[in-house]
Amino acid sequence: MLEQMGKAARAASYKMALLSSLEKNRVLQRIADYLEAQAEQILTANEQDVAEARTNGLSEAMLDRLLLTPARLKGIADDVRQVCNLADPVGQVIDGGLLDSGLRLERRRVPLGVIGVIYEARPNVTVDVASLCLKTGNAAILRGGKETWRTNAATVKVIQQALVECGLPAAAVQAIESPDRALVNELLKMDRYVDMLIPRGGAGLHKLCREQSTIPVITGGIGVCHIVVDDTAEIEPALKIIVNAKTQRPSTCNTVETLLVHQGIADTFLPALSKQMAESGVTLHADEKSLPVLQNGPAEVLSVKAEEYDDEWLSLHLNVKVVADLDEAIEHIRDHGTQHSDAILTRTLRNANRFVNEVDSSAVYVNASTRFTDGAQFGLGAEVAVSTQKLHARGPMGLEALTTYKWIGFGDDTVRA
Amino acid sequence: MLEQMGKAARAASYKMALLSSLEKNRVLQRIADYLEAQAEQILTANEQDVAEARTNGLSEAMLDRLLLTPARLKGIADDVRQVCNLADPVGQVIDGGLLDSGLRLERRRVPLGVIGVIYEARPNVTVDVASLCLKTGNAAILRGGKETWRTNAATVKVIQQALVECGLPAAAVQAIESPDRALVNELLKMDRYVDMLIPRGGAGLHKLCREQSTIPVITGGIGVCHIVVDDTAEIEPALKIIVNAKTQRPSTCNTVETLLVHQGIADTFLPALSKQMAESGVTLHADEKSLPVLQNGPAEVLSVKAEEYDDEWLSLHLNVKVVADLDEAIEHIRDHGTQHSDAILTRTLRNANRFVNEVDSSAVYVNASTRFTDGAQFGLGAEVAVSTQKLHARGPMGLEALTTYKWIGFGDDTVRA
Repeated sequence: MLEQMGKAARAASYKMALLSSLEKNRVLQRIADYLEAQAEQILTANEQDVAEARTNGLSEAMLDRLLLTPARLKGIADDVRQVCNLADPVGQVIDGGLLDSGLRLERRRVPLGVIGVIYEARPNVTVDVASLCLKTGNAAILRGGKETWRTNAATVKVIQQALVECGLPAAAVQAIESPDRALVNELLKMDRYVDMLIPRGGAGLHKLCREQSTIPVITGGIGVCHIVVDDTAEIEPALKIIVNAKTQRPSTCNTVETLLVHQGIADTFLPALSKQMAESGVTLHADEKSLPVLQNGPAEVLSVKAEEYDDEWLSLHLNVKVVADLDEAIEHIRDHGTQHSDAILTRTLRNANRFVNEVDSSAVYVNASTRFTDGAQFGLGAEVAVSTQKLHARGPMGLEALTTYKWIGFGDDTVRA
Repeated sequence: MLEQMGKAARAASYKMALLSSLEKNRVLQRIADYLEAQAEQILTANEQDVAEARTNGLSEAMLDRLLLTPARLKGIADDVRQVCNLADPVGQVIDGGLLDSGLRLERRRVPLGVIGVIYEARPNVTVDVASLCLKTGNAAILRGGKETWRTNAATVKVIQQALVECGLPAAAVQAIESPDRALVNELLKMDRYVDMLIPRGGAGLHKLCREQSTIPVITGGIGVCHIVVDDTAEIEPALKIIVNAKTQRPSTCNTVETLLVHQGIADTFLPALSKQMAESGVTLHADEKSLPVLQNGPAEVLSVKAEEYDDEWLSLHLNVKVVADLDEAIEHIRDHGTQHSDAILTRTLRNANRFVNEVDSSAVYVNASTRFTDGAQFGLGAEVAVSTQKLHARGPMGLEALTTYKWIGFGDDTVRA
């Protein structure tokens, strides 16, 4: 079955690559309209998914993530309309010129071809990813979380109807509808038909893809993010940034998980931190040096375990470690970070520069919250994933990350000397 | 052992990333000088490698590829001096601006970190790759063909001496010196320490890397290249281009392997082709339609086997197939090509455009030889590999392909709303 899907996606990708922005926006517009007009079949499928998930004992928080409502579906449709407004990178000439050989060479941006996306049980991702792939002239093979397979199937049906009515191949957007896990392993080997694989999910999925996929993979989305509180930081602004980075939306990958506090400021900073964290409902996990001070403060505090430096809390918990200097802070980030987002709070220009140059993460910040690492915040308009690897795309991936380029050489019966 | 090399390379990469272009050029200059001044130890090691290879029965052509002479070593040193003259992409600001949130964001080009390169038994590649990695502030782990391990070890020793004398870590360039094949498999799993893997070699090595590597891999270098002879092609210029694309250096990956001849020009073109190929010493492998015509010509001709459309000849052999129209030609390229380099010879603008848009290869040409696909020809100054995949870099990879970028956010105690 997957072999057939792959072939159909490849054939569709050749057609999609030739579309103008106008043609691509026309189908996106129609998809948005149909998501509203045909809401009923999607919502009915979603009801079944949610009912089954409830039977299977999913938490209320998880159930809420699965749930679609007419209002949420309208929001998703509006997001598709937003994608129409984004600039289309396809066709852009990156560079070019006349070579000494007489060859006129240009590098032109083109779609990647077929993009495979494996994602969590979030119904909105199906539409998000499909619309971004379509906007960039790609075909997509989608594999959403098994808890929402009925919702995804109904959604893709609506997308395919819009495609066909616009004279485009339905296979430009396909979903693997079976909840069978073995199909994921099969998808990972389809390098003949799939040009790029984006896993969105936990560390386990990323590991599976890194180890098993024969398709180039973009991994990311795991964020053990740090904030360094330098000895020249100012306490009030530092706390404001920490509160934002920890509590604004704790379940996200750009949330701070560990504070590295310069020993020169620890005595004054830690009591203030405890007070603020108590107000914000954050539990602290303190190292040997900070524990005695923090135990005197109002915030809940536990002794940090070594392995907690290497994991995301994704909740109102925060590690605190006192470091001797910036060297130790940078070394800690190199050893325990995930190259996602890290920040320094400092008033010292030299330390700001050192941090920016020496911390090898997708996004590094000076006196700003780690929460900014996001496609919309970065002005990319949309985001298909956050990459923490270094090839192809790093950090928030916008439309450009769904393209590649080709070299085009125009000769006048030109040969190599 | 590899674990130690990986750790040392990672540590070295942090230091190399901070160097200015001046500092990097200084060490490159010293490497070039030492390659000449200490030629003796490299040439002695090379003599041993060549002697062993001769004992093992390698062909004279292969032995010539292994062989270093004082003149060749001087050429290699001069290539390093050329790398000094190339513009350094590291530190370049790709884009940036002030976001509505107040965050000042820039995207800055930075080294990839640690690059692993697995390559054939060619002593010059050791120096080429090392110099390109050093110029871009990366550390490199090199694994050359086992037939030249002594030469590579001696060469890397000279490079490391230059590094150390410039106050830089020797581990910035390391070679896996043992000819043990198991070490390659071990290298493929070192994703903790290696950021990018470049295999240079045959299809088997690329397949191994795609299937086994947990490190992002750049595959490429396999070229089943096509030239389409459209019905509006002019015969004399077409033959000039074909001779260049086939015979200028037949063993390279950008050499043409299959001609696709429009049926509307076959009757006049094929006899002229046979005459020219006879002069150029090229053996033709003809499909059913072209065989009867070509059998009347002076060139040697055989009946093409189906699988010969899918393999590189890398020698003076050329497939010939008559196609009904451009659609059939494009379909043949999609089915049998390797997305390397393909050309059309035509006087029709519409067909030129269709070819450029619809053939999904790293490089597509109109009225030019496929032989142009090369870093030096493309003005990149140097080439670390030719990528035929679509992620990160496509076609000839110059210095830029050895870099990534980071997002740098400068705030003024800025938080996300």
